[in-house]
Amino acid sequence: MHLKYLHTMVRVKDLDATMKFFELLGMRETRRHDSESGRFSLIFMAAPGDEDFPVELTHNWDGDEGLPSDSRHFGHLAYETDDIYTLCQHLMDNGVTINRPPRDGRMAFVRSPDNISIELLQKGGAKDPAEPWASMENTGHW
Amino acid sequence: MHLKYLHTMVRVKDLDATMKFFELLGMRETRRHDSESGRFSLIFMAAPGDEDFPVELTHNWDGDEGLPSDSRHFGHLAYETDDIYTLCQHLMDNGVTINRPPRDGRMAFVRSPDNISIELLQKGGAKDPAEPWASMENTGHW
Repeated sequence: MHLKYLHTMVRVKDLDATMKFFELLGMRETRRHDSESGRFSLIFMAAPGDEDFPVELTHNWDGDEGLPSDSRHFGHLAYETDDIYTLCQHLMDNGVTINRPPRDGRMAFVRSPDNISIELLQKGGAKDPAEPWASMENTGHW
Repeated sequence: MHLKYLHTMVRVKDLDATMKFFELLGMRETRRHDSESGRFSLIFMAAPGDEDFPVELTHNWDGDEGLPSDSRHFGHLAYETDDIYTLCQHLMDNGVTINRPPRDGRMAFVRSPDNISIELLQKGGAKDPAEPWASMENTGHW
């Protein structure tokens, strides 16, 4: 019996801020369902060429009081990128804190507006260390 | 710049119970890292043929007090299966509660030992309604 991974769903408070965050990573909306009766929206986002493995954003229109400010249970979503320095610079230029800078040329962590942890990994192994990353301190946790 | 989904990580309290749960779904260990110094294990599990999209289980050997009993922030992991009835029966035979039975022949929800929500979807659309699923009540939430 075949089993196939489809997606990971996370609940978000501010849909616009969250979609803007994932767009900064290079992802775009691939599918959307707005339910008037249920008063919720489901937005699937993925990078071009990676449409089969989207993140699903669930947004309850009337808010979601049960939503924690952090979530230890859920670890992170991980993505591979061609150039971790360029991506981190792009995020930083757009106001995203690089919680764990890619000092090693290989791995970085950032957080979505809901503090959902996102791991970024350099494709094909570490790049040569480079500033400003090599000497950049951690910020908070991730 | 290319971005590619790699995995979703969840933290687990009882590694054996959790691995047994994912094995019931048809997944197996594909990669493992045990850190003596960090006192943690990382176990990647995926279904045969689906190795590129594993779930990563993080297990802290000395326990993880911050781990909630539930987590609203994290939604679920979703998997597609060839036969949702057979898979749910297999899970039920092994003591897993079918929180949301596949009454519609299309969708079910179960929970891992840490209450991590798992969505199961029938490949290729709904099967014909069939007992015992069609008349089975929901149990709890998911």
